[in-house]
Amino acid sequence: MFTSQRTAGDAGYGDTGERMAALAAEQTGYLGVESARDASGLGITISYWRSEADIAAWRRHAEHQLARDQGRRDWYQHYTVRVAKVERAYGWSRADGPADPQISTSSGDPQ
Amino acid sequence: MFTSQRTAGDAGYGDTGERMAALAAEQTGYLGVESARDASGLGITISYWRSEADIAAWRRHAEHQLARDQGRRDWYQHYTVRVAKVERAYGWSRADGPADPQISTSSGDPQ
Repeated sequence: MFTSQRTAGDAGYGDTGERMAALAAEQTGYLGVESARDASGLGITISYWRSEADIAAWRRHAEHQLARDQGRRDWYQHYTVRVAKVERAYGWSRADGPADPQISTSSGDPQ
Repeated sequence: MFTSQRTAGDAGYGDTGERMAALAAEQTGYLGVESARDASGLGITISYWRSEADIAAWRRHAEHQLARDQGRRDWYQHYTVRVAKVERAYGWSRADGPADPQISTSSGDPQ
């Protein structure tokens, strides 16, 4: 989980962000990513990985290291990284109807 | 970790969101919250709690339950909830200088 505050201006951020998203998706153990940044420049990106070893390998990736270096030089005012283990997950979609999903007995399936 | 896609329009969302943020902050075990939503309506909110019991109590809070019901009725197209345990965390701020924070021996302190 990567929470960050952007500096003003792009300075190559958009292109590198797209490149890093594509590169991450090619790595062993990659499961997915979610990202949102509001108009104030506060952003949250969560990338999902199969194991700690996969996270460590992605962290060691040379191109990713260069991007992080540029991030500290040009793109971020501050950031926080948290590594967390997902214990459980459930979802809801409009097609599932009004019930509280965690209450259902089959939370992964539409009702 | 709450990832969601908003419907169009406010329909009371802003007011209830502020109320829920204030109410959560009063609960036992609350540690903080981070939230960002981009222009497309995709948002990520992460609230931090001391324990699973604190999370469960907040989930049972009557006013929070009503807000979640309205969320499924009016505010969201879909959402995913993930409960995760933070294993480690580190931060960087511009004042810390260019070094990679996790490489440092005292990652919590400015260098």
